[in-house]
Amino acid sequence: MAYFENVSKISYEGKNSTNPYAFKWYNPDEVVAGKTMAEHFKFSMAYWHTLTAGGSDPFGAETAVRSWDHLKGLDLAKARVEAAFELMEKLNLPYFAFHDVDIAPEGSSLKEFYANLDTIVDLIEEQMKATGKKLLWNTANMFTNPRYMHGAATTCNADVYAHAAAQIKKGLEIGKRLGGENYVFWGGREGYETLLNTNMQLEQDNLARMFQMAIDYAREIGFEAQFLIEPKPKEPTKHQYDFDAATTIAFLQKYGLDKHFKLNLEANHATLAGHTFNHELRVARMNGMLGSLDANQGDMLIGWDTDEFPVDIYDATLTMYEVLQNGGLGKGGVNFDAKVRRASFEPEDLFLAHIAGMDTYAKGLKVAAKLIEDRVFEDFIEKRYSSFKEGIGQDIVSGKATLASLAEYALNNDQPRKNESGRQEWLKATLNQYILAE
Amino acid sequence: MAYFENVSKISYEGKNSTNPYAFKWYNPDEVVAGKTMAEHFKFSMAYWHTLTAGGSDPFGAETAVRSWDHLKGLDLAKARVEAAFELMEKLNLPYFAFHDVDIAPEGSSLKEFYANLDTIVDLIEEQMKATGKKLLWNTANMFTNPRYMHGAATTCNADVYAHAAAQIKKGLEIGKRLGGENYVFWGGREGYETLLNTNMQLEQDNLARMFQMAIDYAREIGFEAQFLIEPKPKEPTKHQYDFDAATTIAFLQKYGLDKHFKLNLEANHATLAGHTFNHELRVARMNGMLGSLDANQGDMLIGWDTDEFPVDIYDATLTMYEVLQNGGLGKGGVNFDAKVRRASFEPEDLFLAHIAGMDTYAKGLKVAAKLIEDRVFEDFIEKRYSSFKEGIGQDIVSGKATLASLAEYALNNDQPRKNESGRQEWLKATLNQYILAE
Amino acid sequence: MAYFENVSKISYEGKNSTNPYAFKWYNPDEVVAGKTMAEHFKFSMAYWHTLTAGGSDPFGAETAVRSWDHLKGLDLAKARVEAAFELMEKLNLPYFAFHDVDIAPEGSSLKEFYANLDTIVDLIEEQMKATGKKLLWNTANMFTNPRYMHGAATTCNADVYAHAAAQIKKGLEIGKRLGGENYVFWGGREGYETLLNTNMQLEQDNLARMFQMAIDYAREIGFEAQFLIEPKPKEPTKHQYDFDAATTIAFLQKYGLDKHFKLNLEANHATLAGHTFNHELRVARMNGMLGSLDANQGDMLIGWDTDEFPVDIYDATLTMYEVLQNGGLGKGGVNFDAKVRRASFEPEDLFLAHIAGMDTYAKGLKVAAKLIEDRVFEDFIEKRYSSFKEGIGQDIVSGKATLASLAEYALNNDQPRKNESGRQEWLKATLNQYILAE
Amino acid sequence: MAYFENVSKISYEGKNSTNPYAFKWYNPDEVVAGKTMAEHFKFSMAYWHTLTAGGSDPFGAETAVRSWDHLKGLDLAKARVEAAFELMEKLNLPYFAFHDVDIAPEGSSLKEFYANLDTIVDLIEEQMKATGKKLLWNTANMFTNPRYMHGAATTCNADVYAHAAAQIKKGLEIGKRLGGENYVFWGGREGYETLLNTNMQLEQDNLARMFQMAIDYAREIGFEAQFLIEPKPKEPTKHQYDFDAATTIAFLQKYGLDKHFKLNLEANHATLAGHTFNHELRVARMNGMLGSLDANQGDMLIGWDTDEFPVDIYDATLTMYEVLQNGGLGKGGVNFDAKVRRASFEPEDLFLAHIAGMDTYAKGLKVAAKLIEDRVFEDFIEKRYSSFKEGIGQDIVSGKATLASLAEYALNNDQPRKNESGRQEWLKATLNQYILAE
Repeated sequence: MAYFENVSKISYEGKNSTNPYAFKWYNPDEVVAGKTMAEHFKFSMAYWHTLTAGGSDPFGAETAVRSWDHLKGLDLAKARVEAAFELMEKLNLPYFAFHDVDIAPEGSSLKEFYANLDTIVDLIEEQMKATGKKLLWNTANMFTNPRYMHGAATTCNADVYAHAAAQIKKGLEIGKRLGGENYVFWGGREGYETLLNTNMQLEQDNLARMFQMAIDYAREIGFEAQFLIEPKPKEPTKHQYDFDAATTIAFLQKYGLDKHFKLNLEANHATLAGHTFNHELRVARMNGMLGSLDANQGDMLIGWDTDEFPVDIYDATLTMYEVLQNGGLGKGGVNFDAKVRRASFEPEDLFLAHIAGMDTYAKGLKVAAKLIEDRVFEDFIEKRYSSFKEGIGQDIVSGKATLASLAEYALNNDQPRKNESGRQEWLKATLNQYILAE
Repeated sequence: MAYFENVSKISYEGKNSTNPYAFKWYNPDEVVAGKTMAEHFKFSMAYWHTLTAGGSDPFGAETAVRSWDHLKGLDLAKARVEAAFELMEKLNLPYFAFHDVDIAPEGSSLKEFYANLDTIVDLIEEQMKATGKKLLWNTANMFTNPRYMHGAATTCNADVYAHAAAQIKKGLEIGKRLGGENYVFWGGREGYETLLNTNMQLEQDNLARMFQMAIDYAREIGFEAQFLIEPKPKEPTKHQYDFDAATTIAFLQKYGLDKHFKLNLEANHATLAGHTFNHELRVARMNGMLGSLDANQGDMLIGWDTDEFPVDIYDATLTMYEVLQNGGLGKGGVNFDAKVRRASFEPEDLFLAHIAGMDTYAKGLKVAAKLIEDRVFEDFIEKRYSSFKEGIGQDIVSGKATLASLAEYALNNDQPRKNESGRQEWLKATLNQYILAE
Repeated sequence: MAYFENVSKISYEGKNSTNPYAFKWYNPDEVVAGKTMAEHFKFSMAYWHTLTAGGSDPFGAETAVRSWDHLKGLDLAKARVEAAFELMEKLNLPYFAFHDVDIAPEGSSLKEFYANLDTIVDLIEEQMKATGKKLLWNTANMFTNPRYMHGAATTCNADVYAHAAAQIKKGLEIGKRLGGENYVFWGGREGYETLLNTNMQLEQDNLARMFQMAIDYAREIGFEAQFLIEPKPKEPTKHQYDFDAATTIAFLQKYGLDKHFKLNLEANHATLAGHTFNHELRVARMNGMLGSLDANQGDMLIGWDTDEFPVDIYDATLTMYEVLQNGGLGKGGVNFDAKVRRASFEPEDLFLAHIAGMDTYAKGLKVAAKLIEDRVFEDFIEKRYSSFKEGIGQDIVSGKATLASLAEYALNNDQPRKNESGRQEWLKATLNQYILAE
Repeated sequence: MAYFENVSKISYEGKNSTNPYAFKWYNPDEVVAGKTMAEHFKFSMAYWHTLTAGGSDPFGAETAVRSWDHLKGLDLAKARVEAAFELMEKLNLPYFAFHDVDIAPEGSSLKEFYANLDTIVDLIEEQMKATGKKLLWNTANMFTNPRYMHGAATTCNADVYAHAAAQIKKGLEIGKRLGGENYVFWGGREGYETLLNTNMQLEQDNLARMFQMAIDYAREIGFEAQFLIEPKPKEPTKHQYDFDAATTIAFLQKYGLDKHFKLNLEANHATLAGHTFNHELRVARMNGMLGSLDANQGDMLIGWDTDEFPVDIYDATLTMYEVLQNGGLGKGGVNFDAKVRRASFEPEDLFLAHIAGMDTYAKGLKVAAKLIEDRVFEDFIEKRYSSFKEGIGQDIVSGKATLASLAEYALNNDQPRKNESGRQEWLKATLNQYILAE
């Protein structure tokens, strides 16, 4: 059965195509910087936004029109699996990602939830075999159910903590079974609403304990996925413990967990934390922790997570620039953690939105690759810092210098090297030229 | 000579005093939670805002009327020293803090700057002996001079780096000579304007190298001050490397510097980073890094560092709550990194503003001490997390639990412990009651 | 039947009471500035947050535990009416406010909705007679139902516009029947998501037309309530047309509607628009448009509408200061458009939260009245602007001056009047003294 | 004498040029949408950022290297005039704009300032005749001098008000003499720091009086420039009275001044107020008040006015889209109210930055013209709102409908017109296609 019968398989038609249902830049087989686009991106469908979300917001009910809306329970869950694979097939999305509750109903007990998960995972496994689609990552939703109102791994209720552990355990087993390449921890309600009622020390200790238990269990069952933590600064809780890349790294270092994790970075989370997306990528990259991307974008004038499909060519270019400099994303990929607007409620919008995102990233990749090929920024930077390659600069970098030796140098240096312009405006104009001048 | 002849020594007159030039809550000898107020606070005058700043802003020239305005060069510097000690004396401020360029003119060479510093430090030392005032901390201004346009320890120009080292070296020597209890590093222009021209890796490596050299030199000369780093997120550069407490801790841990530093936290920097001030204190406290405070406040609707004198009783209470829970600030103190508004340009405003700040902190201390004495939040929190003191909770905390054991527990737990209300509204009403009901 | 059987009627016990279920400052019969507190405030319960909201957020399901949760449809609606009046009675809240969909189920047609409303309005009328409670205002919810995805009075779908009109018509009739003292228009989804698909001119014209029709119909049926518009800047739409007080006033003036409307101002909406609450009150007051208050507060570090119960004594004081200066709120009142936190899910929290809000406003009123009685700010301001009471200043204010006469004056004025300090720090310290020193 | 001898006249070389000192898109003679680019833009140099600013910021001294730096007083002022015209000539900028204090030193009295202005205006007039350059607008700087600490037209000091009037009078005379096409009022410090010391009513009344006097005087001397007000939300004062377009319009309407003014809109001011730039243009356009543009851009993660040169192609496209829909800017133009970064301190950066801005606007114009030519958004919008062209929709728009008639329609309308998707993602993808696919 076709859930999206109005839409055919999307193909590449080039940038001048007038067909809304065609890729203008995303050509999976096109080779850029030595790899095909498909290899660069590992584009992934977010199960939650695409299959289960309905367009509700704090002021409005669901609007989405979906052909599986009339179903309930496991029947609904099964229909969504079929729809998911149809959509991935038509959009040429090779990967997907999900939370446990996205794919199966929770039922009335943990036991029932496990059973429902097993049923649906059977179906997913079958579809994966049939289509060749792969699991980029899965995770456990430990924030929607009221039991998690005070957090999951950072709850004040030990029984809730145990329940969270049970979800993670099952999540790891599912990940292993489906050949998941990564496993994600996004800190749902791991944070606080007010410090007045919060034992932050105990909560963070417990969070570290949960991560360690997950590492141990994955090893025990031979699940070799990359573990990822996804930073976010302040929603749903007032303060989320994994505020941004640097905060998450500080936490991991403190508890000796940094060797076991990389980061799953999201564009909208970056901007909510006051950073550009490429800043977050740079921080992760410098710490050897650039793991995977949740591709989307926020509205810079809005203070909550809008999870829009990424259509900003500047962000896409600078994102792919960091990815290329990182030698790619390894086990990671590019997951569209993005939702169609509430008023884009028709099934066709799911396609148009993914096309927009994939094309934007494809064009961004091409621009980034050309910038690197031409060494536009590299040459500028190399020259800019060249004083650290010789003389006193070399002494500094090599660790030979001391305050005393440097002070003596400065005192006797009558003609210090002049500063040169940072040329920010020219660099940005050049970026424009690469983006616009092709 | 009196630089503030219109103002007499300020004394404590109690909360109903109608004298603007009197303390309403700050009574240095009053014992609160086992120590005098003077011991709790170690209030410090910021030399820059009080003696050298003139009220300019990006759209306006200086407005401040100061009785030393007609002087120049070293004469001006000397007059300011005298004025500083007169003001500290009249305001009962036992400590002060300064950047090198605050106290002495840079002159036309590093040599001349050193000489000028020596001259003024002589004078300061003399005044300190005469008055008993102490140096809370000093630091080097490595951001105002054009040479630091691209940063100091993170510059792209090795000669500039050497110059910065020379300033730090002298700063450490001055600190030692004046018995400074701390030495501060605020990252002036250590950050970037655009990643397009920035080698962030090299810059941060060089920053770490500078810190290490400073540690080495302090040890070499026997300077035993506490080293402090002051986080700030985004001014003057677009991104400051010491963005907030967590980011700074991540950096220190990465380079193995965390044992040598604590944090000097500023209220306005906290809110610019998207945090409450007490959040930053809590993060530092949990990491054993709560060093000292730059007391001020920002305007929550304004996106730059306004450095206002602290007058918010909620912030003062929650700040002193964290300080008391930390067992005090050790070598640190409470430095008024705050400036009078541009339109509060008269000398009297310097007094009225410090009185406002000292009174607010004094009242905040009293409220915080009473809250702790009554165990208002402590008892609530202890009960709230009590499930981690026994049974499965104890297993979790002790490290005995595994995902498997917890999952088994959850599967068999038919009657999980119910969540209880977080009671945020009641806690905030109670805080009000403590603040308002005395 | 008692829906809140665990809570008794709340009474005033004074600021030192240790009973959480008592007022510490709100004493309805206490006379402040010539009126009882009850007369000053006309405190109102928000039906939506208190009776129908369940604590869901974009990342979580409902958490609220309510004794009427097991009911459905009209039975649920009826139980809520009874619970509402019990809560108002116990909390001594004399007024309430509601949207149409808060009180009755929409059913499957407009006809059915009308009928359901009639049924419930009968019940409410009965309860009002029995208890003496009054309707502060009602309104029509034209944003939750999917039909309003593109707006109501600013929709692109004429049939939806007609449906909105039908809701407003019924709302006005209900308001008249229940003796509503005001009728509110909050612009739900009257705004845009992207200008790329928006005819802003037509939308705003249509909005003005709807307002005019409402005025006409109210006159026709003899409904004499004050009409209020409630500004909000950017949620749920990216841009709400009634962005803030000034924007709303511009709109009303343009369409000649300003004589028919006042403003219903909300604290959290003010801060989301980049203003303090008292700024918005001042703007409204200066334009003769201060109508009524939606009392709550936002989190200044969070970018969405948190609708917290008001507990900030500074805001409450400055709000009541504007209200007193306005000679009160006329037909308006103080409606708690505030919700308990998602983790404050127990019925008791509804009481504790309202007590917190009522006490904060009561204390704020007392402080504001004292400040006005002592003419603290008035005398300062009068003196500050005194140069406009004589000479050249009088010429300016009276309209006698011209650019030429002023230029001549300036050219010949060798000794211009000196500026005096704005004394902001002292004014804030004085405000603290009034708040804290009672 | 050549002040920029290292730079030759910039010419158009097309988008593939590798010459940094060439236009890639700005071709003044190219015809787009029926006019030459030169006619569309009337590009203007901002005298303050280009000739007088030195790159200082609140944490740093001036950095700019300029060949006129060694001069002082009137000599400096004269050199800057020559440099200004050289730069305009080389950059093909046909217009310029200035504040009075940009072009001449204030001297020690108003009389002296007038005389200095006369001297320099003579020189400027001469240069204008020689080169054909024109004055887009001038204005009076009434915010830098300490006398304006409390505002100019909204000061509390009548003598300061008179001084401001004298500056405006001279400004109008200069504008007339130089054939200025517009005269701008940017509200420098017209706003407040705290309401505690502010008589907002008197201040705004006085502001309106000043505007009226300016209108009267301009008429008296026969100066026929377009009067422009430039909104800005919150810098340098905490709250600027001309917060944004809507606020300014409300003010003008209230005082009956709306017929005499249009708006000079600035991109960075728009985003600081929480709006996109094209939102502000749309608001102005709908009110017949789109006057002129201050072209620049802010950093969306930074909370102060960064005044960067505009390089964002999305903003430029949507800006020019509004301008084209407005039928152009009339007397207005595109003034680069933008400054080179503090670290772009070399004279060459002034050229590179202007090239970046002019090229971005030129490309934006071309994209906008093509979008309009193809009616991409127009057709979508026309269809979207088509229900208002017939039947009930027509009744609404024509004013025939009433609440009663609409309610009756809705009650009897069994098959209401269905909503259709807003297609936001597709519209944004299409915008990308137009930007990137040329």
